[in-house]
Amino acid sequence: MLGTLMYAPGQVKVEDVAEPSLLKPTDAIIKLAASCICGSDLWPYRGHGDFAQPMSMGHEYCGVVVAVGEAVCTVKPGQFVVGSFCLSDNTCPHCQYGFQSSCEQREFMSGAQAELARVPLADGTLVALEAHPPADLIPSLLAASDVLGTGWYAADAARVQPGSTVVVVGDGAVGLMGVLSARQMGATRIIAMSRHKQRQELALEFGATDIIAERGEDGIAAVKALTRHVGADAVLECVGTQQSMAQALACARPGSMIGYVGVPHGVEFDGQQLFFGQKGMLGGPAPVRRFLPDLLALIETRKINPGRVFDLELPLADAAAGYRAMDSREAIKVLLRT
Amino acid sequence: MLGTLMYAPGQVKVEDVAEPSLLKPTDAIIKLAASCICGSDLWPYRGHGDFAQPMSMGHEYCGVVVAVGEAVCTVKPGQFVVGSFCLSDNTCPHCQYGFQSSCEQREFMSGAQAELARVPLADGTLVALEAHPPADLIPSLLAASDVLGTGWYAADAARVQPGSTVVVVGDGAVGLMGVLSARQMGATRIIAMSRHKQRQELALEFGATDIIAERGEDGIAAVKALTRHVGADAVLECVGTQQSMAQALACARPGSMIGYVGVPHGVEFDGQQLFFGQKGMLGGPAPVRRFLPDLLALIETRKINPGRVFDLELPLADAAAGYRAMDSREAIKVLLRT
Repeated sequence: MLGTLMYAPGQVKVEDVAEPSLLKPTDAIIKLAASCICGSDLWPYRGHGDFAQPMSMGHEYCGVVVAVGEAVCTVKPGQFVVGSFCLSDNTCPHCQYGFQSSCEQREFMSGAQAELARVPLADGTLVALEAHPPADLIPSLLAASDVLGTGWYAADAARVQPGSTVVVVGDGAVGLMGVLSARQMGATRIIAMSRHKQRQELALEFGATDIIAERGEDGIAAVKALTRHVGADAVLECVGTQQSMAQALACARPGSMIGYVGVPHGVEFDGQQLFFGQKGMLGGPAPVRRFLPDLLALIETRKINPGRVFDLELPLADAAAGYRAMDSREAIKVLLRT
Repeated sequence: MLGTLMYAPGQVKVEDVAEPSLLKPTDAIIKLAASCICGSDLWPYRGHGDFAQPMSMGHEYCGVVVAVGEAVCTVKPGQFVVGSFCLSDNTCPHCQYGFQSSCEQREFMSGAQAELARVPLADGTLVALEAHPPADLIPSLLAASDVLGTGWYAADAARVQPGSTVVVVGDGAVGLMGVLSARQMGATRIIAMSRHKQRQELALEFGATDIIAERGEDGIAAVKALTRHVGADAVLECVGTQQSMAQALACARPGSMIGYVGVPHGVEFDGQQLFFGQKGMLGGPAPVRRFLPDLLALIETRKINPGRVFDLELPLADAAAGYRAMDSREAIKVLLRT
C-alpha cells in the first residue's frame, strides 16, 4: 500500500510500504476514508526538532474498521470510525477527568497518511458512527480528528462563554477551527488576527466578527481599540511561537484565560510578567476524545462544516506537493484522497 | 505619630513621622486598629529587588475612619473599615470583572505599619462594617486585608471545588490561609506541605487532612502516593520561588489549575513543559476587594478564625523585632499593636 515518509526536513516521499497489522490485542486496523496534512507536520518539515528517520507521517484519520484485536469490544469491522490524534485508553484517571491527551497510556498516532493505518488503544480512542456517512461529510469528520478538536479545546481551555469577546491568534487551520468553536460556544465578538485574504474570508464564514491584519504592537493596539482598551475575555493561541504567545498575552484582559494549542517552540514565560498581568493559561495537546461525540453530532446534523478548512485536495500519491503547498502557505490545509 | 521605615535590607526603624493628610478628594485617613508584617515585606528586607529608600512599610490594615476627601461617599468618619492591600476604584472594567488587583487606577497600599494611614481610592477599596467589632475579632479582620484574601484567591484561581483534592505549597501565613480557604470551598482532601511542627499544627487546625514534610522529589513522590499517582485537582502555590513552583507543577494533575500568589522571584516557565504537562495557571496580586464582603461576614459570624495565624504580638514601636522574628521564621506572622 502507499504510505508517506519524511526522510529529512523538506523531504517527503510516498512509497509502497508494508500494510499495518495488529500488534497488540487492543489495536484496530482502519481503511482510511481520507487523510490530510497537519500544520504540526510542518515543524519537522521546516527542520524544528529531531526525529527518527524515516518518520511515518499522518495522525488525522477516519475510515472503516477492517480488523480488531481480540481485546477490542467497542468497535468492529465494517463500522465507520473517527479517532483522536492522541491515543488513549479512556479509562485511566486522567481520561476520566476529561484529559485523554494526558492518558497514562498516551501515544500519538502516526502513519495515517496512508491507505491503511493501525490505531492502538482502539476502544479508548475511536468513536463509531451509527451508519456510514455521506461522502460530502468525510472532510468534516476528518477535521474532527485533530484540527477541529484542537480548536475546540483552545476555546474550552480559554473558557469561552456566551457573550464572550474572543481573540484568535493564528489563521492556520486550527485558528480557523477556533473561530468556529468560539462561535458555537456563544461568543458574540470574535476577533481573528489574519493578514491573508482567503483566510480572513473563511474566518468570517466560520463566525469571526472582526478581522485584524496588523501584528505586533499595531495588532495589540487594534485589539485594544476594539475592546474599549480592556482586552479580550478569552484568547486562543494557535501558533506556538514566542511572538504569537506575546500577542496572545497582550490581548488578554486580566483574569482571562489563554487556551494555547500551538506546540510551543522556544517559548518561555517570565513569572513576574504573568503574575502582574494576571493572565491565566491552559494548553497542551487537545483531549479530542472528550469532545468527539458532540463534534460528530454537530457534523452529522450539518450544524457545522469544518471540512471547509480544506482548500486543496490531492491524491495520496502527491502528498509531497501537499507539504510544499502548506509550507508556502498557498494552501490552508491539504486533504489527501486515499 | 509612629511609622515604620525600611532604610536598607535588614534595616527597619520605627520613627516619629508626619501624620498623613488627605492628598486627593478620593482619599480617606484611618486610625489603625492594628497593623502587621507581611511575608512580602521580607523580600526587600532580604535584599531582593530595589526600592526607594526609605520605604514606608505596611499594606495591611483595618480601623476607624477619621477623615475623608470630598469625593468619598461610601464611608464616613467613625466607621470601622477593612480594605485591600491593592487599592482600586471598583468601577473600571477590570474591577467589574472581579480583578480589582488589575484596576486601571491600581496602586499598592503603603504606610500602614503606623498609627494613622492614608487610603487612596477609599470608595473602591474600603468596606465598612455595620458596627465596631469586638476587640477579639481585630486580628481576623486585619488578616482579611491581605493574607486571608490572598489565600482565598489562590484557592479561587486554582478552582477548588467541593470534593477537590488540594495541595498547598508553602506554610507561611498565606499558605495557611490557603488551607482555610480550600476547606471553606469544600475540598475534602487538603495536603499541606510543611516541615515546621507549629505550622503543621495550625494547618491541621485550619482544615488540612494530610501533612507532607518532604520537599523536592521526595515531596512530589509523597503527594503522588496520596493521590493514587494522579496528582492534585488544584494546587495553591504560596511561595514564589522556582523551587516551589516546580513543586506545584509536579503535584498538579493534567488539566488542573495552579493558583499562584507568591510573588515570583526569578521564576521562569518553559512553554513545552507546561504544554505537555497540561498544567493550567492563574496568579497575581489577589483581588481581595472581590472577596472582602464574604470574608468579613464569615469572620463576624465566627465561622472562620484567620486571626489565629498571628503568633506574635508586639507594640508598633518594636516592629524591627517583628521583622527579625519573621525573617528567622520564629514567627509565622507578627501583629503590631498601634
